[in-house]
Amino acid sequence: MSEVVHPLDGWYSLHDFRAIDWNAWKSLTAQERARAEDELYTLLGKYQSTEDQKQGSTAFYSIVGQKADFVFMHLRETLEELNELETEFNKTMFAQVTIPTYSYVSVVELGAYMAKPGTDPMQDPDVVARLKPILPKAGHICFYPMNKKREGNDNWYMLPAEDRRNFMRGHGMIGRNYAGKVKQIIGGSIGLDDWEWGVTLFADDALQFKRIVHEMRFDETSARFGEFGDFYVGNLLNQEKMASMLKL
Amino acid sequence: MSEVVHPLDGWYSLHDFRAIDWNAWKSLTAQERARAEDELYTLLGKYQSTEDQKQGSTAFYSIVGQKADFVFMHLRETLEELNELETEFNKTMFAQVTIPTYSYVSVVELGAYMAKPGTDPMQDPDVVARLKPILPKAGHICFYPMNKKREGNDNWYMLPAEDRRNFMRGHGMIGRNYAGKVKQIIGGSIGLDDWEWGVTLFADDALQFKRIVHEMRFDETSARFGEFGDFYVGNLLNQEKMASMLKL
Amino acid sequence: MSEVVHPLDGWYSLHDFRAIDWNAWKSLTAQERARAEDELYTLLGKYQSTEDQKQGSTAFYSIVGQKADFVFMHLRETLEELNELETEFNKTMFAQVTIPTYSYVSVVELGAYMAKPGTDPMQDPDVVARLKPILPKAGHICFYPMNKKREGNDNWYMLPAEDRRNFMRGHGMIGRNYAGKVKQIIGGSIGLDDWEWGVTLFADDALQFKRIVHEMRFDETSARFGEFGDFYVGNLLNQEKMASMLKL
Amino acid sequence: MSEVVHPLDGWYSLHDFRAIDWNAWKSLTAQERARAEDELYTLLGKYQSTEDQKQGSTAFYSIVGQKADFVFMHLRETLEELNELETEFNKTMFAQVTIPTYSYVSVVELGAYMAKPGTDPMQDPDVVARLKPILPKAGHICFYPMNKKREGNDNWYMLPAEDRRNFMRGHGMIGRNYAGKVKQIIGGSIGLDDWEWGVTLFADDALQFKRIVHEMRFDETSARFGEFGDFYVGNLLNQEKMASMLKL
Amino acid sequence: MSEVVHPLDGWYSLHDFRAIDWNAWKSLTAQERARAEDELYTLLGKYQSTEDQKQGSTAFYSIVGQKADFVFMHLRETLEELNELETEFNKTMFAQVTIPTYSYVSVVELGAYMAKPGTDPMQDPDVVARLKPILPKAGHICFYPMNKKREGNDNWYMLPAEDRRNFMRGHGMIGRNYAGKVKQIIGGSIGLDDWEWGVTLFADDALQFKRIVHEMRFDETSARFGEFGDFYVGNLLNQEKMASMLKL
Repeated sequence: MSEVVHPLDGWYSLHDFRAIDWNAWKSLTAQERARAEDELYTLLGKYQSTEDQKQGSTAFYSIVGQKADFVFMHLRETLEELNELETEFNKTMFAQVTIPTYSYVSVVELGAYMAKPGTDPMQDPDVVARLKPILPKAGHICFYPMNKKREGNDNWYMLPAEDRRNFMRGHGMIGRNYAGKVKQIIGGSIGLDDWEWGVTLFADDALQFKRIVHEMRFDETSARFGEFGDFYVGNLLNQEKMASMLKL
Repeated sequence: MSEVVHPLDGWYSLHDFRAIDWNAWKSLTAQERARAEDELYTLLGKYQSTEDQKQGSTAFYSIVGQKADFVFMHLRETLEELNELETEFNKTMFAQVTIPTYSYVSVVELGAYMAKPGTDPMQDPDVVARLKPILPKAGHICFYPMNKKREGNDNWYMLPAEDRRNFMRGHGMIGRNYAGKVKQIIGGSIGLDDWEWGVTLFADDALQFKRIVHEMRFDETSARFGEFGDFYVGNLLNQEKMASMLKL
Repeated sequence: MSEVVHPLDGWYSLHDFRAIDWNAWKSLTAQERARAEDELYTLLGKYQSTEDQKQGSTAFYSIVGQKADFVFMHLRETLEELNELETEFNKTMFAQVTIPTYSYVSVVELGAYMAKPGTDPMQDPDVVARLKPILPKAGHICFYPMNKKREGNDNWYMLPAEDRRNFMRGHGMIGRNYAGKVKQIIGGSIGLDDWEWGVTLFADDALQFKRIVHEMRFDETSARFGEFGDFYVGNLLNQEKMASMLKL
Repeated sequence: MSEVVHPLDGWYSLHDFRAIDWNAWKSLTAQERARAEDELYTLLGKYQSTEDQKQGSTAFYSIVGQKADFVFMHLRETLEELNELETEFNKTMFAQVTIPTYSYVSVVELGAYMAKPGTDPMQDPDVVARLKPILPKAGHICFYPMNKKREGNDNWYMLPAEDRRNFMRGHGMIGRNYAGKVKQIIGGSIGLDDWEWGVTLFADDALQFKRIVHEMRFDETSARFGEFGDFYVGNLLNQEKMASMLKL
Repeated sequence: MSEVVHPLDGWYSLHDFRAIDWNAWKSLTAQERARAEDELYTLLGKYQSTEDQKQGSTAFYSIVGQKADFVFMHLRETLEELNELETEFNKTMFAQVTIPTYSYVSVVELGAYMAKPGTDPMQDPDVVARLKPILPKAGHICFYPMNKKREGNDNWYMLPAEDRRNFMRGHGMIGRNYAGKVKQIIGGSIGLDDWEWGVTLFADDALQFKRIVHEMRFDETSARFGEFGDFYVGNLLNQEKMASMLKL
């Protein structure tokens, strides 16, 4: 098994999906609501500072449909920092009117399949920038977890390394066709969460999510080996949009 | 993979299923109930205006059984509008006595299999009308999500394009037998929600739902490749029927 | 696909399983409990009237175990009537102390496999009586939903019609061995609910449920093609038994 | 199918798993807690009387882990009696501080594979004692439901009767190795609950549960055909131990 | 089946995952919070005493993401002790503000595949130390349950013993590559909980969890036969860290 090539690992990642308990929100006094919003916007400011100092990055999006009302996607250097972000949020008054609906823990990774032999990729600033990325402020987000199948003849992990490399190369080529339209962050989560990867896509045109995932589904890598969890899709949030969403 | 033909995409779609919390409804005062109904009917009026202006369309149906009490199916130009509809509803007093039970996000689509080569279908008013449809006021609705299977020898996405086209042609022919009896809206949801499609059927005779789905199940497209989620069935609602449903 | 023979369809059916919230029941005053019972028994009387007028039929049984405390199985001419029965029940004071646990929507059907060629079965009073049956008052009920499998070589819907007919003939013969011991109502639910059929059995000796289902499991129709959901089993209820159950 | 041999059926069985709502328990006054305990111990006494009169048997065990806090396993002559036991418990004050977590309905059975031809087993007092057993007071209980698989080539119900008999004989031989260490009660639940059997094991040394199930897993009957549900394991309870558990 | 070699069994193990109900925590008075913390830290001290006396061991970690806020992993000599630990915790004031989210019951085991013939391993102090281990205070914990697959040609329990031994040897070699980086405790749970094993990993660098599980996934033992449940990952807790987490 000495031939297993590990992916390159970057920042730890926590997707924190939450619903708003509207009945609880409405039951607060105007003063309490103002304080709850203040605390939330203070946190948003803190996340922005961390990003400005390149100590991490946070994306903040609404979620369409009943699965959640919004998501924080936090990238940080350590698992401890992710844990602290959760606790810090949970102590706010705003957290009191939210209900956790789903979360995902992973590590930003770059596939070993793309590594150039004979170089130390961690010395390549471009590689490091992709492993510790500042998350885009695109109009839309899409998140889904996935596995590579291990069933009968469709067992990814029993394929020769050469075959896996070829499959991934074709797969990567589809991704490249969407360059400039879809930005993709791969979170590796083997040993960390319930699926093997958590994929986050960013795009200004949400239809591009549908097109790239549709096109990839016909690629043998996905067609034969892809297992997909739930899909979450949403719109960019910021303090102003959140204030409008929360305004009664 | 350059051969993948994308479907034509129309309006974004949100199915919003909700149960009524009858205990909460009964605990309101008559005055509060009146206000809750007022707010609901104002929204219904707004949805109708949007439809009159051809900026979208909304269907409103009860659901039989415990899965939900009613569903809004909203079609709009953007994901942002769908999100705003949710938020607007959540802020009403009526929303306080409802419980979200299921939702589905998709895009009205027309299968690439039916596209005529050498023409721009988006210039065809008939095609556009099907992609941005005014939803029918049929007596009954039926909704279910579905996938095309990817298991062993029954892997839709590994079939040659020619085979998929032939399968879909036969499948479409069954649908045509129900013309005038069942109206079908296909929502593509690859990359947007948990299944690949969300199918909505409208009919004045609910037995036609049973017959068309039964007949299609013997078609190889469904028999070998169809994977189906939960089925929701219900009756047309409007302000008058809703008022009678809510009357204590 | 013109060869697909549809089953004969009769009354719409709603199984409505509910648990009693005993803490809520106990928290009512004696007066409130009396009123709740009154409302419930009034409904029972109404269901009986409908049955007397042959406009429908309702079975009322307890459920053993924690899945539910009781079930109403309503047969009516239309989906609208089923919806009204739900709403009417939900508005009662008794409904306030119950929790919906499961429901099932279907249509009483007679398999197309048994149809005699060249006759209009709907002119046969015996057929009509089986499609619009008065439900028996047997000591026990058993309900379970089921599918015909579509997996690899065990794909019911890919079998030649002749094979399916032969399989069903053998299957029906087992059923006939239980004539007089088990009464079976088949609800077709393709396009209406999550499984393809909902099976309801009635018997005075509950062991007969175990024996008929056990015997059928060895029949190739079930052994190779049967997929089964949850099983519910219970005892006949009426006003007197319900009063004793609710007495604190 | 006339060759299907039915198992021998004994007492009906209800496993009733419940968690304690500790917050509710603590919120009672000392007087209320005393009354709740009194009512519970009165029921325990009643169950013992029934057992003394050989009209049934009840086992009472704690459950380790969060799946439940305790389980009653009731054996009685009829489904009606099981239903009454549930209702009787639900009416107690102690039930108010418990939460139902799982239940299972079955019938104590002896496999048809062991029947000797030409004899009426119900005349054999030893057989009757095994069908209507007084449950042991062993230190530990283990419960799990199971099915025989029906997948592709691993379809138990498509095997020739002779093969099934041979498989079961080997299986039974493992069980015999644990005679004196593990007591096993098989509840048949085809047509009664969600799995085909509910297995209850009793042992003074809980490690014997691990060993017998481990050893059987390598037996072809389990290895190829066994499908297992959730496992519950616990310790013997009685009034004294329960009082100590409930003492605040 | 006399050839089945049982693993060596050590201490019983209970993983007890819990979320904090932050709304409930905030609703306590400062005095109540102080008392709740006192009770919790008293328990932590008790667990430490038990460990000092080598009567058991307890690990205490936070969990990242919404699956839980913290986990106790208790090792003790008997199932009764584990049950008492649960009850003791449930009676504390701190337990009132927690919500049970998942638990797992198992027995620390050493695979029979590694046993040297002709020796009594329980006389080997090294073996005993591994069966009754003092849990490490590593920076991070990872827990996941798993099964060996029994599907078609990928049926672990139908393999010849020799093949299983070879597979496990290769598997163990990967583990050895992580010596000093990852400490692994295997809990056998056949007959005790829903999966066959519960695996707990400890490491100072959480990325090692990702790497060891990733590397093992390509090993045929996991690739063909491994079935994995949910993964939990977290950070070391102690009184000081907990106090900081709970500080409002």
